[in-house]
Formats: sequence, C-alpha cells, structure tokens
Amino acid sequence: MAIIFYDLLSTLPHKAFSPNTWKTRYCLNFKGIPYRTEWVDFIEIEGVYKKLGLVPSSYKPDGSPTYLLPVIHDISTGVSVADSLLIAEYLEKTYPVPSLFPNNTIAFQSIFDNAVRDAALKPQRRFTIPDIFSVVSLQSKDYFRRTREAAFGKPLEEIAPQGDEAVAEWAVVKAGWGTIDSWYIKSGGPFILGDTVSWADFVVGSWLIWARTIWGEESQKWKDYASWHNGRWLKVLDDLKEYQRID
Amino acid sequence: MAIIFYDLLSTLPHKAFSPNTWKTRYCLNFKGIPYRTEWVDFIEIEGVYKKLGLVPSSYKPDGSPTYLLPVIHDISTGVSVADSLLIAEYLEKTYPVPSLFPNNTIAFQSIFDNAVRDAALKPQRRFTIPDIFSVVSLQSKDYFRRTREAAFGKPLEEIAPQGDEAVAEWAVVKAGWGTIDSWYIKSGGPFILGDTVSWADFVVGSWLIWARTIWGEESQKWKDYASWHNGRWLKVLDDLKEYQRID
Repeated sequence: MAIIFYDLLSTLPHKAFSPNTWKTRYCLNFKGIPYRTEWVDFIEIEGVYKKLGLVPSSYKPDGSPTYLLPVIHDISTGVSVADSLLIAEYLEKTYPVPSLFPNNTIAFQSIFDNAVRDAALKPQRRFTIPDIFSVVSLQSKDYFRRTREAAFGKPLEEIAPQGDEAVAEWAVVKAGWGTIDSWYIKSGGPFILGDTVSWADFVVGSWLIWARTIWGEESQKWKDYASWHNGRWLKVLDDLKEYQRID
Repeated sequence: MAIIFYDLLSTLPHKAFSPNTWKTRYCLNFKGIPYRTEWVDFIEIEGVYKKLGLVPSSYKPDGSPTYLLPVIHDISTGVSVADSLLIAEYLEKTYPVPSLFPNNTIAFQSIFDNAVRDAALKPQRRFTIPDIFSVVSLQSKDYFRRTREAAFGKPLEEIAPQGDEAVAEWAVVKAGWGTIDSWYIKSGGPFILGDTVSWADFVVGSWLIWARTIWGEESQKWKDYASWHNGRWLKVLDDLKEYQRID
C-alpha cells in the first residue's frame, strides 16, 4: 500500500463526490499507484492536516485558515501533499510513467482548471449548493449551511436561481460548457491533447462526475448535460472510464 | 509575396506597437512566410474589413461593430482572416511547418492569451492608456481619446493610477507577471513548452514588446519589468529575437 488518499465523505453509497478529490483519484488510477482511501468529513479535515503536519491550503480574508481536500500521504516516501494540482505534480515527479503532463505541457495544464472554472463552473456554482447540502454527512450539515450562507449572504434554500433567472443562468452554464467543447473540437478530441489523455481531461471528468453525482443521473440538469454539444459530456466520461474506479 | 499583413500605425519610427498584431508578426516570421506589412490607422480599420469582405471582429454592448487588427490577406489562397488566434490557426493549417501548436496543444494554446490577460494585463491596463495615446497617430488621437474616456468614464489624463494607488496597483502587476513566471518555472523554460517555442511564447513576447515600446526602454516601468523575476522578461524577449523582425 503506497499511498493514503484522503477523500471527502458523503451520504452516498459510494461516498465519492468532491470534484477536487476526483482529480487525485483519476491520477492515482491512471498511474496505477496502489492506494487506500480514507474518508474524511468536512469538520475532520483540519485534524488530517495537523496529523500530517501540513500547513493550511489557503487563508480566508479574515486571516483564518482553510483546510481542503484532497490530501495524500505517500507511505513509501513519507511525503504528505495537499491540493489536487500539487499532488499531481508530486505524483508525476515521483512516479513519472505514464505521464500526466505529456510533452512538457505542465505550464498549460496548470492553468487549465482555472479556465474551466471561468468558462462553466462559476455560472454553475449557485445551482449546486442545495444539492451538495443533501449529500453532506449529517454531522457536517450545520458547518456546510453556515459557511455557504455566509459566502452567499442568503439562506441556503435561496442560493440557487429560480424561475426566469434560473432559465437565463442555465443558458450561461450551457454556453460555458460550449466553450470547453470548442477546445475539444480544436484538438480533434477525444482528449484535450487529441489522442493523448492528460491531467486536463481528468479535470473535466471530475467536474462532470461531480455534476452527475450531486444532481443524479435522472435529474433534468444531468439530462441537459447529456444532451448538450452532441453528447460530448457522456462521451468524455466514457473515454475516461478506466480511471474512475473508487478504491 | 504571399501575405499582406495589416498592422496598426503609430508615430514611432518603426511603427509597430500593437500587442495583438505582434502575435501575427511573430507567427509570420516563425513560419518564414513572405509578407508585406500594410500600415493602417485606427480610423481606417473599418475600410480594410469592407475591402476584404470581412465581418466585424465583435460587437459592442450597444450593437455597433468593432473592427480590430490584425488582419491578413493571403494572396496565394485568396483568404482573408481577422483575429490573431484565428490567423494563427489559419497559418498552421495552410503552412503547417514549423508548428505553432506542437504536439496538438491547440486547445491549451487557445486559452493561454486569456490566462495572461487575467494574470497581468488587466491590472496593467490603466497604466498604459496615456502612453498609448502618445504614440497614436495625430488623425486618430480624437478617436482614441473619445473611446477610452467612454470606456473608463473619466478624462484620459486621470485613467492611470496615481500616488499610493499607483504603488499598490503596480505591485498587483508585478504579482501577475510572477504568476506567468511560475509557469516558465514549471516547464523548466526557456519556453512555455520547455525546449520548444510555440504560440504561447509569442503571446508573452508580444505583450512584453508592447510594454517596452509604449513606455520606452528608459522608463522606470520598463526598468522594473527588466528587474523582476530574475530577469525573466529580458531573457524571454532575447530568446524570441529571431522572430521579431519588422518587415
């Protein structure tokens, strides 16, 4: 057992839902590194950081620390790393084959997540909050409600757009995924680098799995996703299937 | 003579200063495509679009068209193209060697310009307006002043930050270039793809030439650039020197 992978707990049977930890799971599966998942609740993340001697991922405007997953601890080397991109860079350096950043594309790969966020995830964010709340573990529900209500300045139940605003905002989400689709069209697909799978595809796949998981395969939102851009999003998930095992 | 390259006129002896047209000049020089530059004033751009039968690059919120350079007309194929990335894609398809997007990195390359803008150019923009005004041709000065004053909602002379605000904003500019520097560090440099020059380096080079040109090599701003990030920016320009010929 080489790596302990700290992932975020949910009430779902297969537990995994966090998009950022999915990126790490993709990397571990892709590189074929043996790992064991340790499921951690929101309110337990700080304890993982302290146990492993990690410094906080970032700081809030008020100066208080933020503790985020994924985190890994590599038993073989004794190294612990937080943050999905930093973990990918660590894994690439320590276990170089197969490569997450082929042809030295690391600079590009490192800006890709932000580009996806700007295109599709920022407009989508408000739609997801109530559905994330429904899969958060019972003991973290208070924490989740409090932090999200503070961030958005309104009750959790009012964060998602409603009525005409929802229709307009959902069109923005679709246009954002259309931008991402245009990147696949440019490369010729099926991957961002054309024939070669890389970190960028795992970023897209993680955000897709997250949407499918929190909304559910039978939801209208996921059915919309599945119908957009000539079925691109089901195809991307299918093309990455061999790296989606939850251990 | 294969290509006519429409570039923006200035009062400078060598004329070239526009960052977006510099991207195209880099591409033409890199691919070794024979071309002739046709110098166009701001207020003449619309006429170039009409002569070549091009549709406007984009539309303003009020619905009126925007006409931007670069534009090329390829005499060999009869094709005219506007927009630096679309021109690069056209040149890559029509004159594939050497490649602007090696290893099928076109999807990444196409998001790179935005990443540079977000990191460093948005914070820098206000510092550049008065200096651009000073190199704009006499007959375009009224046009430039009117459009920029409308965009920023203040007199041209008040757009650039002053005093304490200038110090704080300039630190944001430096931090933005620090982000771009971190990408070069990740790849190991000297280029964004490591050893291989590509479109992304021409984007960075174009923004650097622009800064050096409008502020001048002896300005404190350019001296700051030259001193930042272990001399990265002078080195990037030097590494791209063979593609900087103005024909």
